[in-house]
Amino acid sequence: MTTMRWSTLPGLTLACVVGSFSSVLAATEPAEGGHTSRVIVVLLALAMIILAAKLGGDLMVRLRQPEVLGELVVGIILGNLSLLGINTFDFLRHNLVLEVLSELGVILLLFEVGLHTTIPDMLRVGGSAFLVAVLGVVTPFFLGWGVGTYFLPQAESLVHVYLGATLTATSVGITARVLSDLKRVSTDEAKIVLGAAVIDDVLGLMILATVGGIIAAAETGQELALSSIIQVLGLSLGFLLIAVTLGRMLVPYYFRLMAMLRSGGILLATSLVMCFGFAYLAGIAGLAPIVGAFTAGLILEPVHYQELSARDDDVSIEELIAPLVHFLVPVFFVTMGTRVNLLDFARGDILAFALVLTLAAIVGKQVCSLGVLKKGVDRIAVGFGMIPRGEVGLIFASIGASLMLHGKPVVDSATYGAVVIMVVLTTLVTPPLIKWRFGNLAGVRAEKVHA
Amino acid sequence: MTTMRWSTLPGLTLACVVGSFSSVLAATEPAEGGHTSRVIVVLLALAMIILAAKLGGDLMVRLRQPEVLGELVVGIILGNLSLLGINTFDFLRHNLVLEVLSELGVILLLFEVGLHTTIPDMLRVGGSAFLVAVLGVVTPFFLGWGVGTYFLPQAESLVHVYLGATLTATSVGITARVLSDLKRVSTDEAKIVLGAAVIDDVLGLMILATVGGIIAAAETGQELALSSIIQVLGLSLGFLLIAVTLGRMLVPYYFRLMAMLRSGGILLATSLVMCFGFAYLAGIAGLAPIVGAFTAGLILEPVHYQELSARDDDVSIEELIAPLVHFLVPVFFVTMGTRVNLLDFARGDILAFALVLTLAAIVGKQVCSLGVLKKGVDRIAVGFGMIPRGEVGLIFASIGASLMLHGKPVVDSATYGAVVIMVVLTTLVTPPLIKWRFGNLAGVRAEKVHA
Repeated sequence: MTTMRWSTLPGLTLACVVGSFSSVLAATEPAEGGHTSRVIVVLLALAMIILAAKLGGDLMVRLRQPEVLGELVVGIILGNLSLLGINTFDFLRHNLVLEVLSELGVILLLFEVGLHTTIPDMLRVGGSAFLVAVLGVVTPFFLGWGVGTYFLPQAESLVHVYLGATLTATSVGITARVLSDLKRVSTDEAKIVLGAAVIDDVLGLMILATVGGIIAAAETGQELALSSIIQVLGLSLGFLLIAVTLGRMLVPYYFRLMAMLRSGGILLATSLVMCFGFAYLAGIAGLAPIVGAFTAGLILEPVHYQELSARDDDVSIEELIAPLVHFLVPVFFVTMGTRVNLLDFARGDILAFALVLTLAAIVGKQVCSLGVLKKGVDRIAVGFGMIPRGEVGLIFASIGASLMLHGKPVVDSATYGAVVIMVVLTTLVTPPLIKWRFGNLAGVRAEKVHA
Repeated sequence: MTTMRWSTLPGLTLACVVGSFSSVLAATEPAEGGHTSRVIVVLLALAMIILAAKLGGDLMVRLRQPEVLGELVVGIILGNLSLLGINTFDFLRHNLVLEVLSELGVILLLFEVGLHTTIPDMLRVGGSAFLVAVLGVVTPFFLGWGVGTYFLPQAESLVHVYLGATLTATSVGITARVLSDLKRVSTDEAKIVLGAAVIDDVLGLMILATVGGIIAAAETGQELALSSIIQVLGLSLGFLLIAVTLGRMLVPYYFRLMAMLRSGGILLATSLVMCFGFAYLAGIAGLAPIVGAFTAGLILEPVHYQELSARDDDVSIEELIAPLVHFLVPVFFVTMGTRVNLLDFARGDILAFALVLTLAAIVGKQVCSLGVLKKGVDRIAVGFGMIPRGEVGLIFASIGASLMLHGKPVVDSATYGAVVIMVVLTTLVTPPLIKWRFGNLAGVRAEKVHA
């Protein structure tokens, strides 16, 4: 339709005026297909979120805690004021644009973290990262299976297995943020955690494909489609392999080509295209977009962009990305907080189940630190970095809620509630633990050197 | 619903894998409520748009034209490849998130432009800006009315009047962008154009309220609600007055309060909250959000943020905002281009009408330069800066398409098509004209000094 194509552009909110002279405040209501008013709502939301993030951050700095904890806490408060009858902030929870903005934030954050790391760095800790990832998936899996057997004795074994699966994958966003704030991204511990999280993502994908496939097979009576699982695994591993080999080979040519362009802001544009492009490809391969962004940062080295950097007063990509990260990352953590429903914690029937599940999740990831092969690495720090489950566990749980096994959902409402509590608690305990352990790390090392 | 609240977070796109093992590419299809896949689509779109913007910009730099023209042109190409049977890029046209991102871009651009200008600067050119705005609204209005009378002889007078109204309001985004690229934002000519555009927006709001009210009154037989029109005017003028008086008084206290926070990135956060907050309030007052953002930049001066700036190696707000502007502004102009439908230009029946309308729009804004009182100001430069109509004319036109007068829409499909062509042409001719005239400006001035 020609007649509506340009009209979706921003501009005067006049549409509202004609329709309702009596109340110009109607400008906040959808008008003209809602486009202009949609940006108005986002403007209000962003102003509120940024302000709230800084207030929460300030409080935590005063309490000597990581700022991100404050952002999560103000988010939880804003998202739950409706319990006190204040519904002013409810719109922050369901805004699609805010969701995408916050996802762009965490994608840029992982890109930035990747920039601080190189492929040789990762290879140096590769063995440890691999073992940590495998142990960190296997242990919580069996612990979760056990917890399921104990708390859900009536349920079928496959349900217990599925519960184990929800505990497997690490959600590295929060760890990356705290390490970045603490300027500890370049430590060996950080590299092991980041590497293990990437491998975790592949393993998680495999487990979900396998367990989901087994359940589907049990339900329909068909055979397990092994070829599909292999395809899923092949695609995700394929992306990673191609990205770090072919991608790494082609990056210099890509930057040299882009350097031929005479338009302004080429260094930022070139980096963003690479970051978003890799994140997109990871998504297509079934991985988390943040894994792609991290990989892009990983293979990108200062030597690739010297020429472009020199054009712009030797500015680095990190300096150009930093304002974007500072703008969008708090949006991620505050809106993450708004989605926590405190009522979930008031369910007496599942609280014990939830707490034991959380314990299994945390203990499971401490065991994984036994996989650290490299000498002089602080195992406790690695274990703490692997704790948060975040979105991945929830995606597992909500897929489970939609999977049916003999007429019942694999993940019922009580189990889902317990998984939510587990995710919230693992997310909230991580920042103080990391700050404490990684904060000490420098001190311990310094002492060793002096001794 | 508790069960879906956290599941909207980003992460693995595993949801898709279980549902469709056979095709992992289904990750691009909506899954899990579509949230994860929505970010994937936006990632692809952003990578494409940024790349296209830089290619278009490069071409224009080589042709010694403003980069923004290249961004518009690549946008038009991408948006119209479907005419050649290539539908790959069609998704760029209707993505809500891209629309909001691009609107955030132009809001930040006007904030940045406002930062380069002060209230005393604006007052110095205030008389000229006011006269330019009034002449620049009145002349196109009557010219458009005349064009309507000639080309639409069968239509009622109110239809001709309405057509005049669609020609009134300047769309300052493109002018601001070209001036910013040329580093000519601080010239008197630029200040007059920017000031006049703000006043234009108030006048446009008034005209639409009045003409819309008259049409509604004619249709329903009721009296024109004068009080509503006064309310619309009062609210928009009220916002501007309060913003530049009370706002300016309170800014130092706001910055001093924010400086007490110990969280990181306070200078950027403080500026963004002010920019988005003012843009929001302008929107609520019925004005364009960009008018609010410009006002925020206008009243904000370096003296207000010295303390915060000193904390951060004396970085200025401009330096912190620049990467955001460089990221988001090309998104605005490229997506603006994608919404142009070249088929509109193939309509022989309306082409003459459209071209005469465009001429009326351009000539009307050249007359307005007679309103320049200040000596030594280049009138042609001012007139050129006022040409683009952009979104505002289209919003007028689409409201007109929904207004009925004696059973017919006030703006019929042919008239709408002609307005679209007028908007596209005024947008495309402006960058080269401004570049030519403002480029010469410096030369002329330099010569005068030397003489």
